Amino acid sequence: MMENPVLVDVTRGERVESFHRGAFAIVDGDGRLVASAGDVEQPVFPRSAVKVFQGIPLVETGAAAAFAFEPADLSLACASHSGEPGHVERAAAILDRAGLDRHALECGCHWPSRQEVAFDMVRRGEEPNPLHNNCSGKHSGFLCTAVHLGEETRGYVGADHPVQRRAKAVIEDLTGAALGPDVCGTDGCSIPTYAAPLKGFAHGFAKLVSMKNVSADRAKAGRALIEACMAHPWEMSGTGRACQAIMDLGGRKVFAKTGAEGVFCGALPDLGLGFALKIDDGAGRASDALAAAVIARALRDAEPDLAAAFDGLARKTLSNWNKIETGEIRAKRLD
Amino acid sequence: MMENPVLVDVTRGERVESFHRGAFAIVDGDGRLVASAGDVEQPVFPRSAVKVFQGIPLVETGAAAAFAFEPADLSLACASHSGEPGHVERAAAILDRAGLDRHALECGCHWPSRQEVAFDMVRRGEEPNPLHNNCSGKHSGFLCTAVHLGEETRGYVGADHPVQRRAKAVIEDLTGAALGPDVCGTDGCSIPTYAAPLKGFAHGFAKLVSMKNVSADRAKAGRALIEACMAHPWEMSGTGRACQAIMDLGGRKVFAKTGAEGVFCGALPDLGLGFALKIDDGAGRASDALAAAVIARALRDAEPDLAAAFDGLARKTLSNWNKIETGEIRAKRLD
Repeated sequence: MMENPVLVDVTRGERVESFHRGAFAIVDGDGRLVASAGDVEQPVFPRSAVKVFQGIPLVETGAAAAFAFEPADLSLACASHSGEPGHVERAAAILDRAGLDRHALECGCHWPSRQEVAFDMVRRGEEPNPLHNNCSGKHSGFLCTAVHLGEETRGYVGADHPVQRRAKAVIEDLTGAALGPDVCGTDGCSIPTYAAPLKGFAHGFAKLVSMKNVSADRAKAGRALIEACMAHPWEMSGTGRACQAIMDLGGRKVFAKTGAEGVFCGALPDLGLGFALKIDDGAGRASDALAAAVIARALRDAEPDLAAAFDGLARKTLSNWNKIETGEIRAKRLD
Repeated sequence: MMENPVLVDVTRGERVESFHRGAFAIVDGDGRLVASAGDVEQPVFPRSAVKVFQGIPLVETGAAAAFAFEPADLSLACASHSGEPGHVERAAAILDRAGLDRHALECGCHWPSRQEVAFDMVRRGEEPNPLHNNCSGKHSGFLCTAVHLGEETRGYVGADHPVQRRAKAVIEDLTGAALGPDVCGTDGCSIPTYAAPLKGFAHGFAKLVSMKNVSADRAKAGRALIEACMAHPWEMSGTGRACQAIMDLGGRKVFAKTGAEGVFCGALPDLGLGFALKIDDGAGRASDALAAAVIARALRDAEPDLAAAFDGLARKTLSNWNKIETGEIRAKRLD
């Protein structure tokens, strides 16, 4: 197994206490590696970082238009959201327009990731339902597509259901990877997730924003989703989350989406670039920091001031319970 | 930097999704490496894994006897507890016997780590206080020692306070490492934490249980704490925690204590062995699994059935929100 480099350090006092290895790829629309570190050919599970790819059929089939999706709805359909009231209400409204409710969702239940939100629910005596699942927006999009095409909605999370087959076909088209049973796992929300090389995921996002090596309709659908996420980052993530911080800073020049187990994918639309990264050990604290560093690298020449701001976002001070500074998480500067 | 080996895999479907590198040492009372992997000479922060070492002055000074510490109190004094009501009440009772209350604690506040416990507090309209801090038992022990010796209690978390100087002297004695400002960081509960080699921490625990290369009084104090933790693992950890699972399985033949950022230390008292491990990236899921594998390795020859049971504990099935099995966390079998 190729050794990936250390890309993120976590310090305590003057020492490195822990460190994270990983790989990243920045790719253009022709599939050229603009920058990389580590093994970008090894298949990795993208998890939620490719929700834009999985959302493309919602737009391509006309379901989004048929059910009056606003940009904020499209962002939610690409979201790993924090289960805040605005997320839950928007997902419920989408389902309602398709004649469905939360009972149609097959993503399972979990408490909102944001502690204050969970505590507020506890105070009100509420329990989580599938609308609180961070994937409920994506699943609402899946259901709308099935309803629009007259498909059976039950079982839409199964690998053989047309909803998942369409999503897989889009990912194969965009990544150029063959996604067979050998690279298939079950995701947290019960849909299949397929491992493919980081370089392929980065190229897929580059295709969408460069409109190279992809059909015009697919690029249009993908760009609509990416633009919706950049315009409405809260709907795609939540209060205080890394994706929101990145897109707030990026000012519609950066799209970025996290995935479980230390993955991040994204795009620089104006530059026609896509990127993908994975932390070997799956740590989100490290992928959050490395995403900022990779974006800084991608912006370095074209947008030096914005790149410097992302270099700042790649470092995070750590404090203890008495608010005493104990160290920091810091991605390596990538030049 | 020496490359540590992959010791823990996290799978999804048939594939390894993420993996964790690290190092471990099993050492006897003479300081001989019985088994190891990776760099065991590199200094690492032990964090809470050496609370037994930090608790030794509580016993050695006579403070524990003066304030009528039962074995369960000694276990709490070595704890990273989950803030459950029984932990909080016991810490409050210890402080009360020393004429103090929670306002004397300088560890800071955080919500209990166990979600149900935090939710119960929210339902009752409560907020966390320093007694809920996972370190409140250790800090109560620090305070009792200071009171017993007639020292100023305020500022007991400072590196120059006698409480912390005694703790440092014990760790230097047991590890054989010089702990200067160059290896000092601030811990989550605001006391100093000192980095030293894994081999030294493992040897320190081996000294206590083998009674070799250590004064009789120090060994007696250390054994009293270790035996208290093995007899009362819940007080040292909490419901569902890895330390409790390990000590429940070990049946007083195994002592083990976790530390933040992927550390575990422990001892096999009957075999006169100590161990220490650190996951490079700091992941607790990996150190929990590796601790079981290291204990299995240490027990392999003397207690093959118990070793096999710990091999089982070194693997944990992962399920998603619909309770579908998605993969597992599995430490490598160590032979």
